[in-house]
Amino acid sequence: MPLYRARVLVSLRPSVLDPAGEATRAAAGRLGVSAIQRLRIGKAVEVELEADSLDGARAQLELLSDRLLANPVIENWALEQLEPATAEA
Amino acid sequence: MPLYRARVLVSLRPSVLDPAGEATRAAAGRLGVSAIQRLRIGKAVEVELEADSLDGARAQLELLSDRLLANPVIENWALEQLEPATAEA
Repeated sequence: MPLYRARVLVSLRPSVLDPAGEATRAAAGRLGVSAIQRLRIGKAVEVELEADSLDGARAQLELLSDRLLANPVIENWALEQLEPATAEA
Repeated sequence: MPLYRARVLVSLRPSVLDPAGEATRAAAGRLGVSAIQRLRIGKAVEVELEADSLDGARAQLELLSDRLLANPVIENWALEQLEPATAEA
C-alpha cells in the first residue's frame, strides 16, 4: 500500500490557559526578547502511514486525531501537509 | 512597531527515542489504525511579537528558539510561516 505523510497540529483552545507558554514568555523577557504579544505551545505530530488512497489516509488520521492525539475538551487539531511519501522513500 | 506572527516547530532529533510517540502508535493499533510506519511528537510554538522589521523578528525568534524553546542536545527546531500579522489585527 502506498505510504502517506502528514502533520497533525494540536493546539490548546483559545479559552484554555497555557501556563507553560506564559512561563516561556516571561523567560523570553529575561533573555531580552520582550515584545512578545502571544506565545502558545501546542503539539506537532508527524505521522507516516500506509493507506489505499489519500482519502483513506485522511479518514484514518481524522480518527486518530479525534480519539487519540487531541483532548477535545481543551484542544483543537488540524491536519496539515497530507501527501504521498513514496516518491521520497 | 509592526506585529509579526510565526510558528516554531521543535522536533526530537532522529536519533532520540520518542516513548510518547511509540505509546501513541501502540494505542492507534488498538483503535484499528494499524498501518502507521512512523509517529513522532514534537512541539509547535505559535508566537506573535513586535519587531521593527521582518529580519528583526526573525533574529529574535532564532534567539528564542536556540536558547529557550529547543534543547539543542536532543531537539531540532525550524521557523515556519513568519509573516506580518497587522493586516488581520
